[in-house]
Amino acid sequence: MTNPVIVEVTRGSLVESQHRGALVAVDGDGKVVFSIGDIDAPTFPRSACKAMQALPLMESGAADAYGFGDKELALACSSHNGEDAHVALAAAMLARAGRGVETLECGAHWSSSQKVLIHQARTMDKPTALHNNCSGKHAGFICACCHRGIDPNGYVGYDHPLQAEIRGVMESLTGAVLGHDNCGTDGCSIPTYAVPLRGLAHGFAKMATGNGLEPLRAKASRRLFDACMAEPFYVAGTGRACTALMEAAPGRIFAKTGAEGVFCAAIPEQGIAIAVKCDDGHSRASEAMVAAALSRFFGKDDPIRASLAAMATIEMHNWNGIHVGDIRATAAPTA
Amino acid sequence: MTNPVIVEVTRGSLVESQHRGALVAVDGDGKVVFSIGDIDAPTFPRSACKAMQALPLMESGAADAYGFGDKELALACSSHNGEDAHVALAAAMLARAGRGVETLECGAHWSSSQKVLIHQARTMDKPTALHNNCSGKHAGFICACCHRGIDPNGYVGYDHPLQAEIRGVMESLTGAVLGHDNCGTDGCSIPTYAVPLRGLAHGFAKMATGNGLEPLRAKASRRLFDACMAEPFYVAGTGRACTALMEAAPGRIFAKTGAEGVFCAAIPEQGIAIAVKCDDGHSRASEAMVAAALSRFFGKDDPIRASLAAMATIEMHNWNGIHVGDIRATAAPTA
Repeated sequence: MTNPVIVEVTRGSLVESQHRGALVAVDGDGKVVFSIGDIDAPTFPRSACKAMQALPLMESGAADAYGFGDKELALACSSHNGEDAHVALAAAMLARAGRGVETLECGAHWSSSQKVLIHQARTMDKPTALHNNCSGKHAGFICACCHRGIDPNGYVGYDHPLQAEIRGVMESLTGAVLGHDNCGTDGCSIPTYAVPLRGLAHGFAKMATGNGLEPLRAKASRRLFDACMAEPFYVAGTGRACTALMEAAPGRIFAKTGAEGVFCAAIPEQGIAIAVKCDDGHSRASEAMVAAALSRFFGKDDPIRASLAAMATIEMHNWNGIHVGDIRATAAPTA
Repeated sequence: MTNPVIVEVTRGSLVESQHRGALVAVDGDGKVVFSIGDIDAPTFPRSACKAMQALPLMESGAADAYGFGDKELALACSSHNGEDAHVALAAAMLARAGRGVETLECGAHWSSSQKVLIHQARTMDKPTALHNNCSGKHAGFICACCHRGIDPNGYVGYDHPLQAEIRGVMESLTGAVLGHDNCGTDGCSIPTYAVPLRGLAHGFAKMATGNGLEPLRAKASRRLFDACMAEPFYVAGTGRACTALMEAAPGRIFAKTGAEGVFCAAIPEQGIAIAVKCDDGHSRASEAMVAAALSRFFGKDDPIRASLAAMATIEMHNWNGIHVGDIRATAAPTA
C-alpha cells in the first residue's frame, strides 16, 4: 500500500514538499489505539530502540554494580550531540568498567549539531569514538560485558554473546523473529533488525506498562524510562527533538528518535506507546508527526497539549529571519 | 496523482527508505523525450534556476563592462560551499561595481559542507553575507543594477526593477505566468515562483539550444552554460553533485541543484534539458535521479555513461567504513 501524506512543507501559500509515512499507537496489550498507513511493514528502528538495547546493562546488574544513576542510564539510551558533558560521561562510564575509548567499536564522527561542531572544531583536532552519538550506548554495552566477565572485544558483531542477548530481548518485546534475513548494519556497526512498526510500538508499550514482562525486565524498563525522562539532555542534547519533547512534559513522556525517519515514544501514565516511520527517512517529518500524535493524549486545556501541538508545526525562517513557510503534520489522528 | 518511487535507500538486503518524485527531459521545442510522474505540478525551482536569474547580468552588458570571465559567471549561477575561493571571488565581483559586503541582502550562514564549516570555524568568528551560498548570484544582481544606474537597495524585493526583469525572463523561458499567487520567498530572500516541472525543463532546453530566443538571450544563455561547464568548482564546490556531474563530462553537461529536491541539467550538444523534483525535498534522491537520467544520453561504450551511472547508485558506509547500504535510482527511463 501507499502510505498517506503525514507532513507537508509549505512555502508562501503553496505546498513545496510532502512526506508520507506510517504511525501507530498501541496499549500494553498490543491493541491498536490508532494508526495511519502500513503498520506491518518491516522497519529498521535504528537508534529508536536504544532503550531496548540497554536492558542487558540493567538486567545483568552492571548498572547497579557500577553505580549508574539517571544521567548514565539516559546516556546509555541516547543518540547524543557529542557535547562536552555527553563525552565526559561516556568516558566516566567506561572508566567504571576499567576501560577507555580504545574499547569502543562505534567509530568516530563530528557532531551533527552545527553549534556543537563549531565548538568541537575550535577545541580539538578530530573527534574520537567518545564523540560518536552512540558512545553512551556502547559504553553501556561494554559495561554489561565486563560486569559479567564477558570479553567485550567484538561486541558489535552479530555472533557476540551481547548481540545475541539483545536479539532475544528484542524478539521478546516486539514479537518479531530476528535473524540474518531482516538484519542490517547500523551506523555504529551493531546489527539492526527490521520489525513491523506495530511490533516496535508494542515493545515500547510493554516497557511502559510492564504488561507481560518478568518482574526483572519490567523494573529495568521502568527505570530506563524514568532515567530518560529525568535527564532528557543526556538522551539527545541542545536543540534536539527527543530532549524538547521530554522537557515539554517532565516525567510524562519518553521519546527517542532513530535514523531514517523513525520516532518512538511512550506515555507511561497512560500505558500508550507510539512508533512513526517516515517513508523517505526525513527526521523533520517524524519529529512533527510524533509531536502531533502525542499531543492528542493530553486534555484540551492542558498546556502540554499546546506545547506538543506547537512542535507539530514548525515555522521555517530564512537567513534574514523572514518566515518563508512551515513544516506541519497533516495526518494526526484523533485519539 | 501519486508520483512513483524514483530512488530507494537500502540497508542489508532490505529497502529502508524510498523517495517519490517526477522527472522530465525535453528538447528545445518543448517536446517531451521522456517523463516520470506529474510533470505539470507547480514546482519551486529554488536555486536550480540561477542561470536564468543571471541573464540580466549578461544582457545588460554588466558582465562585459566589469570584465567578468568564466569564473565570475559560474559564481553568478552558483550555490557555492563558501570555500575561501568562492568568498574572495564574490567580494571581487562586488568591488568591480564599487560595492562591498554591506550591499548584499542575502543574509549570512555557515557552510553546509562539514569540511568547509570546520575550516570556517577555525579561521573566523562568524560568517558574513559573502559566505552565503547565494553570494555570487547576489553579487551578479548588484552588478546588473549598478551598471545600469539602478539603485541596488532593496534588490531582493518583488517590486524592485531587477526582480521584475527576472520575472519577465522566467515567464518567457518557462511559459508560466508568474505573480503573487505562485510566489514564495527563497532562503536568500528573493522571490521564487512555482512553475510546472515541464516548463522549467523547457526553459533550460531553450537556453541550451537558443530555440525561440532573441539572439542576445541565446548568446547570453550559451555563455553562462559554457562558463559553468568550464569552471564547475565555482558552481558548487568540493564534494558537491553539480561540480561532480560537470566534471564527469567536461563541456558537455550543465547541472544545477535547488533546495527541496530539485535538479536541472542540460546536454547542450544534444539540445536536451532535464528537470527533477523529489516530492519530499531530499537532495540525495534528486542527485541520484539526475545522474541516472543523464547517463542514458551517452553511448553504451562511452565512459561518461559509466561515470554518471556510478553517481546514480551511491554506496553508504558507516563510521567504521562498513558498506551498509545504497542509495539507488530505480525509475530511470530509457532514452
